[in-house]
Amino acid sequence: MNSRPASVSARPVDDYRDSIEQLLRPLAARPVEAVTVPDALGRQLADDVRSPVDLPVFRNSAMDGYAVRAASVAVTPVTLPLVGVVAAGNAGQTPLPPATAIKVMTGAPIPPGADCVIPVEDVHSDDGSVTIERGRGAGEFVREPGTDVRAGDLLVGAGTTLTPRHIAALAAVGLPSVPVFRAVRAAVITTGDELVDAGSTLRPGQIYNSNGIALAAALTANGVDVVSVAHSTDDPAQFRKLLSAATGAADVVFTSGGVSKGDFEVVKDVLAPLGGQFGSVAMQPGGPQGLTVVEGVPVLSFPGNPVSTMVSFEVFARPILRHLSGLPDVEIYELPLHNEVARSPQGKRQFLRGRLIRPKSGELPALHRYPEAVEVVSGPGSHLIAGMAWADVLIDVPAEITSLPAGAAVRVWSL
Amino acid sequence: MNSRPASVSARPVDDYRDSIEQLLRPLAARPVEAVTVPDALGRQLADDVRSPVDLPVFRNSAMDGYAVRAASVAVTPVTLPLVGVVAAGNAGQTPLPPATAIKVMTGAPIPPGADCVIPVEDVHSDDGSVTIERGRGAGEFVREPGTDVRAGDLLVGAGTTLTPRHIAALAAVGLPSVPVFRAVRAAVITTGDELVDAGSTLRPGQIYNSNGIALAAALTANGVDVVSVAHSTDDPAQFRKLLSAATGAADVVFTSGGVSKGDFEVVKDVLAPLGGQFGSVAMQPGGPQGLTVVEGVPVLSFPGNPVSTMVSFEVFARPILRHLSGLPDVEIYELPLHNEVARSPQGKRQFLRGRLIRPKSGELPALHRYPEAVEVVSGPGSHLIAGMAWADVLIDVPAEITSLPAGAAVRVWSL
Repeated sequence: MNSRPASVSARPVDDYRDSIEQLLRPLAARPVEAVTVPDALGRQLADDVRSPVDLPVFRNSAMDGYAVRAASVAVTPVTLPLVGVVAAGNAGQTPLPPATAIKVMTGAPIPPGADCVIPVEDVHSDDGSVTIERGRGAGEFVREPGTDVRAGDLLVGAGTTLTPRHIAALAAVGLPSVPVFRAVRAAVITTGDELVDAGSTLRPGQIYNSNGIALAAALTANGVDVVSVAHSTDDPAQFRKLLSAATGAADVVFTSGGVSKGDFEVVKDVLAPLGGQFGSVAMQPGGPQGLTVVEGVPVLSFPGNPVSTMVSFEVFARPILRHLSGLPDVEIYELPLHNEVARSPQGKRQFLRGRLIRPKSGELPALHRYPEAVEVVSGPGSHLIAGMAWADVLIDVPAEITSLPAGAAVRVWSL
Repeated sequence: MNSRPASVSARPVDDYRDSIEQLLRPLAARPVEAVTVPDALGRQLADDVRSPVDLPVFRNSAMDGYAVRAASVAVTPVTLPLVGVVAAGNAGQTPLPPATAIKVMTGAPIPPGADCVIPVEDVHSDDGSVTIERGRGAGEFVREPGTDVRAGDLLVGAGTTLTPRHIAALAAVGLPSVPVFRAVRAAVITTGDELVDAGSTLRPGQIYNSNGIALAAALTANGVDVVSVAHSTDDPAQFRKLLSAATGAADVVFTSGGVSKGDFEVVKDVLAPLGGQFGSVAMQPGGPQGLTVVEGVPVLSFPGNPVSTMVSFEVFARPILRHLSGLPDVEIYELPLHNEVARSPQGKRQFLRGRLIRPKSGELPALHRYPEAVEVVSGPGSHLIAGMAWADVLIDVPAEITSLPAGAAVRVWSL
C-alpha cells in the first residue's frame, strides 16, 4: 500500500484555485443600487459617471484681488476708480466699465468685461480708487468654465472603488447619488460538536469556535457583506437546514470543518451527494477541500483547523473576492528568506507564516522602505492560530522544494 | 513694495506640520471601551491581551488516525485490537490499555497512555482490529497543550490595529471582548455663502459644497469617527454657534474656507481673536492656513478651494491621524518623473497630482510590481478637483525647485 496516497493524487493549488475563480467570476454581475455620495465611500461604481456640469461652473477669480480689463493696466503704475466688490456667492453679472476696477474674492464671479485679476499684494487701495503697481495679461488669475471638467465628460469610470478623492469630485459636480454594485454577500457555517462560544467554560475535549469569527472578519476586510455566521453540530439534518438558509441569503457560502477522512465529516457527507467535489489539494496547511454548487450558489468547504481555514481563505478566496469588490490585488512579493526552512513536504505547496523585515522610522511621514527580507514565525502546524497573529505574510514554498537556505528568494503573499 | 510679500514670510511646510502634530499627539490618550471580538476588527487595542488558556487546550490529534503507545508499534507490521473511537468533542479521558489502538479524529483528545497517532493512510482496519504498516515515535502527530500559546503569554500587544488574523487568535482563546481605544472624533465645518447642497439648482455665483463630504470621507478612510458635518454662511454668529457645538462633541475640528486675504473671512475673523494663528505656509496649493485651540480642542482651518482642502488634509492631518489610529504610515516613495514639470513656484513647496505607472497583470493573484515612475495628471490649479480623481499620489516638489526634467527623482505621497 502507498504510505501517502493522498499527496500523489492531490490537485495542484493553482488548478483548484482556477476552479473556484470560474465559479465566483459570475458574481461580477451583481445588482446595482443608488447610494448617496457620502455613503459611496469604498463602494464600487457600477456605471461610468459623467459630469452634469462644467467645473468651474462660471468664470471666477483665482485670487483675492481686483478684476480689471488687461488693456486698463497695460501701463503701470495706474490708478483706477473702484466700482464695487464681488464676494464669493455674488451673481457678479453687472459688466465692468473700461478703466475701472472691482474687488473680487477667490472663487467669486468675474464681471463681464473684466479679463484679468490683479492680486491684492500688487495693489494700493485708497478711498474709492486703487493704484496698480504691476500689470497682468488677459486671462491671468482667471479660471475659465469647464477647464477642470466639462459637462458630459467622464468623471469617474465604471468599476472604480470610490476613495475620498473620487467622493470629492462627485460632490463637486453636485451629484446627490451614484450607482454602485451591491457588495458580494457571504454566509459562513462552521461545523463540529467540539466547538463552543467565546466566554463559555470549556469542558474536556471542547475548544472555542474561532473560525466563524475569523472568516467573517476576513470577508469583511475584503469588501464582502457577511449576511450570516452560523454553527452546526455534526448532525447532518442541522447542517442541511443551515445550508439551505445560507444559500437562500448569500451569493457564496463558506463552511469550515467536516471535509477530511474522519468518521464524522458532516460537510462532506451532506454535500458530496449533491455533487460536491471533495478531495485533497497539494498544499499544507489546507489540504482537504470541498467545492459544491447548491441551488446555484457556490459553497467553498475549508478544513476546520483554524490556520487551515485562514490559509484556504487567503489562497483560494481572497484574490477573486478582492477582484470582484474592485479592491487592489493581493500583494505578492519576492523577498530573501531571513532564516532557513529546514523541511518542507515533498509534493505539497507549503504556506508558512512570515513576518516582513523592514527598517522602521519614527519620523512622520516617513519615507517608505520596501521590505528587505521575510522571517518565518511560528511553526508549520495548522493549529498554530496564535502564531498566525504575529505574521503579516504567507511564505509560499513550492511543492517540489523540501528545504530552503537562509537568503533564498521566496514569494510572500500579504495577509 | 514687495510683489509677493506673503511667500517671503511664509512658514515652511514641515515646521507647520510639526505644530499640528504637537497639538494632536495628546489624542493618543483616548478613553478605552470594551467591544466584542467580532466588532473589534480594525479597532486599536488599548492594552496587551494575554491568553487566558493554553492553546491547544488539551493534547489532541493532528491527523485522522489511530492513537497508540509508540512501544506497541516499535515493530511493524503489527495488528492491534481496536478499543473504540474518539471524535472531536469527546472527553477522551479513559486511559488506553497497552497493545491496543483507538481511532481518533483530527483535533480529538488523545487518551492518557497513548503517545502517538498513526495516520489513517498507514493502517488497514478490519473487524475489531487494525494492522499498522509503519510505526511512529512518541509525540508524532500529537499536539501538546500550550505549544501554540501558554496561558498568561502575550497574544496581541497594546496599540495593535486588529486585522482578521488577530481576530482569529483572540477568538481561538475564547475572549468575548477586548479593550480598544475609542476612535478619534472629528467635526467638520465648511464655510461660504456661495456653497449649496448636492442636487440643488445653482444660481449665478453658486457652487456645490464638496469640502464637507470630501473631508468626512477622508477622515473616515483614515480611522476617524466623523461626529458632525455642518455648513456655515459667512455670518460670524452662525459660525461661532456651529464651532461651539463642534468643539463640544469632537476631539478635533476641521474648517474649510474663510482663512485668506479677502474681505469676508469668517473663520479667521472669529478664530484670530480667540488666539488662532493665521498666515501663509510656503506651499501650493494650500498656502493660507489657520490653527487655533478652542475650549481645549484643536481647530485646523484649511483654505476653501477643494484641492487646497484635500492637499492640506493629506499633508498636515493624515500622517498624524493614521499614527493616532494605529494605521500603517502614509507611504512616501521616491520615483522617477515620467513627464517634466515645466514650472514650480520659487519658495513654495508644490504638491502636484500624480499617477503611478506600474505594469498591470490580468493574472490573479499576480506578482506585485513596484511602481516604475509617476506622471503628472491635471494642472497645478487649486480648483481642479475633478483632475484630482485621476491621481493616486501627490508629487512633492521642494520649495527651492522651479522646474524638473523628465526622469528626475521625486518623492510621491500615496493618497
